[in-house]
Amino acid sequence: MVADTPEPPYVAVIFTARRTEVAAGYDESVTAMKARAAQQPGYLGIESATEPSGFEITVSYWRREADATAWKQVAEHLAAQQLGRSQWYEYYEVRVTTVTRQYGHRVG
Amino acid sequence: MVADTPEPPYVAVIFTARRTEVAAGYDESVTAMKARAAQQPGYLGIESATEPSGFEITVSYWRREADATAWKQVAEHLAAQQLGRSQWYEYYEVRVTTVTRQYGHRVG
Repeated sequence: MVADTPEPPYVAVIFTARRTEVAAGYDESVTAMKARAAQQPGYLGIESATEPSGFEITVSYWRREADATAWKQVAEHLAAQQLGRSQWYEYYEVRVTTVTRQYGHRVG
Repeated sequence: MVADTPEPPYVAVIFTARRTEVAAGYDESVTAMKARAAQQPGYLGIESATEPSGFEITVSYWRREADATAWKQVAEHLAAQQLGRSQWYEYYEVRVTTVTRQYGHRVG
């Protein structure tokens, strides 16, 4: 579930949100959006974690900022964003970033 | 729980990990490290979400990259990192980023 990203630089979009209690349609939309995003030019991967409390962090990775911007404008994604604002999220914050360094560790 | 960050640019360090089943000492360490990080120069905030499955994303925000690097070298944090590698995390990835844009939405 850790995205297999290339050598920096590349783009990470950090989406931080608190869910409402509205669940209808949410899981289906997430599944569909992940599949749709993966078809976009410059897509590198996605990571997501949601607390039982409803606090969510999702990070999507892109080759260039223009790739992330293009994904934001895809019709199906615009529709999902609208539902997110009106139904699924109490609030959210989006931060567009450039990854400059990365390092990791695997046990064993 | 969404960090109240200033106008970009600033630094976001994305920590993505999978927990082991070792729980001993973990919650206490997280609480202590969050308190200790907040005393560091350039600290802007932290956001964290862990799935019930053990997949974790934690993002810490810093004024400058040097602030994030200094935090990595703080003695108590070095000790916690060592325990993380030996006990608490099956694997992790750290990505150091520069936030270039941010926007958000609050319902109501």
